[in-house]
Amino acid sequence: MSVTAPRGFAASGMACGIKGDDRLDLALVAADPPRPVPAAGTFTTNRAAAAPVQLSRSHLAASAGRAGAVVLNSGCANAATGAPGLADAGATCAAAAAELGLAPEEVLVCSTGLIGNPLPIRPLLAGLRSLVAARGSEREDGDLAARAIMTTDTHDKQVVIDADGLVVGGMAKGAGMLAPNMATMLAVLTTDAVVSQAELAAALRAAVTTTFNELTVDGCTSTNDTVLVLASGAGRQVGRQQLTEALTAACGDLAFQLAEDAEGTTRVARIVVTGAASDADARRAARRTAESNLVKTSLYGADPYWGRIVSELGSSGAAFDIDKVSVRYGKVLACRDGVEMAHDRAAAAAELSGRVVEIVCDLGLGDGSASVLTCDLGHGYIDENMRTS
Amino acid sequence: MSVTAPRGFAASGMACGIKGDDRLDLALVAADPPRPVPAAGTFTTNRAAAAPVQLSRSHLAASAGRAGAVVLNSGCANAATGAPGLADAGATCAAAAAELGLAPEEVLVCSTGLIGNPLPIRPLLAGLRSLVAARGSEREDGDLAARAIMTTDTHDKQVVIDADGLVVGGMAKGAGMLAPNMATMLAVLTTDAVVSQAELAAALRAAVTTTFNELTVDGCTSTNDTVLVLASGAGRQVGRQQLTEALTAACGDLAFQLAEDAEGTTRVARIVVTGAASDADARRAARRTAESNLVKTSLYGADPYWGRIVSELGSSGAAFDIDKVSVRYGKVLACRDGVEMAHDRAAAAAELSGRVVEIVCDLGLGDGSASVLTCDLGHGYIDENMRTS
Repeated sequence: MSVTAPRGFAASGMACGIKGDDRLDLALVAADPPRPVPAAGTFTTNRAAAAPVQLSRSHLAASAGRAGAVVLNSGCANAATGAPGLADAGATCAAAAAELGLAPEEVLVCSTGLIGNPLPIRPLLAGLRSLVAARGSEREDGDLAARAIMTTDTHDKQVVIDADGLVVGGMAKGAGMLAPNMATMLAVLTTDAVVSQAELAAALRAAVTTTFNELTVDGCTSTNDTVLVLASGAGRQVGRQQLTEALTAACGDLAFQLAEDAEGTTRVARIVVTGAASDADARRAARRTAESNLVKTSLYGADPYWGRIVSELGSSGAAFDIDKVSVRYGKVLACRDGVEMAHDRAAAAAELSGRVVEIVCDLGLGDGSASVLTCDLGHGYIDENMRTS
Repeated sequence: MSVTAPRGFAASGMACGIKGDDRLDLALVAADPPRPVPAAGTFTTNRAAAAPVQLSRSHLAASAGRAGAVVLNSGCANAATGAPGLADAGATCAAAAAELGLAPEEVLVCSTGLIGNPLPIRPLLAGLRSLVAARGSEREDGDLAARAIMTTDTHDKQVVIDADGLVVGGMAKGAGMLAPNMATMLAVLTTDAVVSQAELAAALRAAVTTTFNELTVDGCTSTNDTVLVLASGAGRQVGRQQLTEALTAACGDLAFQLAEDAEGTTRVARIVVTGAASDADARRAARRTAESNLVKTSLYGADPYWGRIVSELGSSGAAFDIDKVSVRYGKVLACRDGVEMAHDRAAAAAELSGRVVEIVCDLGLGDGSASVLTCDLGHGYIDENMRTS
C-alpha cells in the first residue's frame, strides 16, 4: 500500500539528520519519469501558515497546477521562521528541481515538526541528491517515504484504492487536520488517472471536505496542514465523479487512520447529527460536540453522560429545540424529546467501550445531517503534549 | 465575606437531602425584610437552558426586574428535564414566595449538578420552610449559603467590596462560566446601593462582560450559568459608574476564585492580547489561545512553546500578520516579529511555573486589546471528568 501503487510514480525516504539521529526524516514523491503532471492541493486556513505552505501555494499558482515532485521533511515545521524559513523552503525546491530536471515551481514542499525552530537546511540539502537517486516504484519505496514523514505517529499511514482500474495511492501523517502535538497533518495522494488539472482540483476539494475536514482531534488548526495530489496520466481517462469517489475513499481511509493514531487516544468516535435545520447547522453541532473536552473525557471514561452532549448541541449555534432532541449511543437510545429515556446504562456504557464508537444526535428539526470523526481525551494526550522537550 | 455583608439581606444554607447525604445542598438569599427590590441577571446563551434559567428569566421579565429572594440548589441541574422540570422550578418559587410573603415571580431560582436527572422536589420543598426560618444576616449565614451551592468546588467562593460605603457582597460556585464537570457557574451578588433597576442591570452587564465572560475553563457553555444581583437600597445613592466599578471588582474577584479552583487545575493564566486591529479581534485571539488544548497542556507542563500560541493567534480569525507578532511569558520575550528571539528558555519556563502566570501577545496591528483568564489542562481534569458516577 503506498504512493507508488499507481503507475507513473517513484518515491523514497531517508534519514538526512534533521532529527539528529538515524530516524527517517526526508521523503520524496515524484512523477516517473520526472515531468510536470496535473497537481492540486488544499492547505491550512491558519494565517500563521508555515513557509512550505506559502511556497507550495505560490508554486501551484505559478505552474498553473502542474508539479513533478513533492519533498517532505519531518522533525521541523519551518513555521514562524520568517524570511530565512521561506528562503530555506525555496532552496529545497530549487535543489530537488535541479536533480530531477524540473523547474523550481514544479516542486512542492511540506514540513512537519516543532514550530519556531529554523529548518536544518544543510543536512537537508546534503541528503537531497541521494534521496532523488534512491527513488523507486516498488512498494518498499513508498513505505520508506510514508515512514519518513512521521513525527509522533506510532505507525505509518498508507492507502491504495483500485476502482475498476483507476488507482489512487496515498500516505499521511499526523494526529488530525486539527493539530497534533508537533503540529501538522500532511497527506500526499497519487493517481494514474488521465484527468485535467481543473477536474483533479475539484475532486480533491470535494474529497477533503467530507474526510479530513470532518476530522477533529483537539480543535487546533496547524500551521502546516497540507493535502496534495498528483495525477500521472499513466492509467485511463476518468470522469470527475469517479475520481471524486476514489479520492474520497482514499482520504476517508487515511483520516480514520489519523484519528485512530491520534496522540494518546484510546477510542475513535463518529458523532453523527441528523434532523438539523440545514447541513451547515448539522456540521456546526457535530463539530462542537466532537471538540468538547467534556464529551471527549466522557468518551475516555466510556461514560454515557448524554447531558453533556445535549449541552454542546444547545450551545453550538445550530437551531435547537431541546424538546425535540434525541441522543443514541450505538443501539441504545438514552434521551428522547430532550429528557432521559428509560434505558440500560450498562448497555450504553458497553456501546462506548469499544475502540470505535458511534453517537447519533437527532435534532428533530429538518433534513440536515453531518458526521464528524473525533477521539477521546485522556491521560495519554496530556503526557504527549505537556512538554515538547 | 458574604452576601450578607451589605445591609438589607439575609441568607441561609442547609442539607435538605438532594445530595442524599448530609452535605449542604439548598441555599437562600433574600431581601431583609422580604420585599421586592431592584434585581438583574445574566444567563447562559446555551439553547438547552435549564428550567431554573428559563423560569428566572421569565420571572425577572414579569416582575419588571424586581425580586425579593433567590433559592439555589446543588446536586441536580434540573436541566434536560422537560415540562416536569419547569413545574418543579415553579413549585420551588411558589413555596419560597409563600413562606416569605412574596409573589412567586418575585423569587428567582438556580440549580447546579448533573444534567438530565429529575429534581428531587420532595426533599427540596420539605426543606424550604426551615431554610426560610433559619435565615439571618450574620457572616455565618452567608457562609452557609455559599457552601450549600458547591458541587466539585474544593472550597466556597465569596467576596465583599466596600467602596466608600457602597457595599457589594457575592458568592459563586463552579469551575468557570464555561462548564465545570457537573455543569454550571452560579453567582449571586448583593448590594446596599440605592439604584434603579435599569442602572443595576446596566452595571451588571458591564461587570460580567469584563469578568465572568473573560473566563474560560474548557470552552463549554453550561446549561445553567446564572449571575444575579439584588440591591436592597439600605445604603446610599450611587451612580452607574461607581456601581459598575464595585460590581466589576466583586465579579473579577469571584471569577479569579473560580479559575483557581477549576477542576483539576494547577495553574491560572491570564492571556493578554494587545496591538489587535480591534478589541473584538483581540478578544477572539485571546479566547482562541486560552481555549486551546495544546496551549493549556503546555501550561500544565510549564513549557514555553510559543509556536503553539502563534498558531492559535493565526487561526483565531483575527486580522493577523505573522511578521508583526510578539509573545512574552511574564518578563521574557520569546518571539518578536514572528520569529524566535534569543532568550533564556529556563527563565521563560520559570515564568510559567507559578500558580498564576501571564502571557502577553502583541499583534502589532492596532490598538485593540483584551484579556482572558484560563487554567491549565492536566491529569486532574481528566480524572475529574472521565466518569460522573
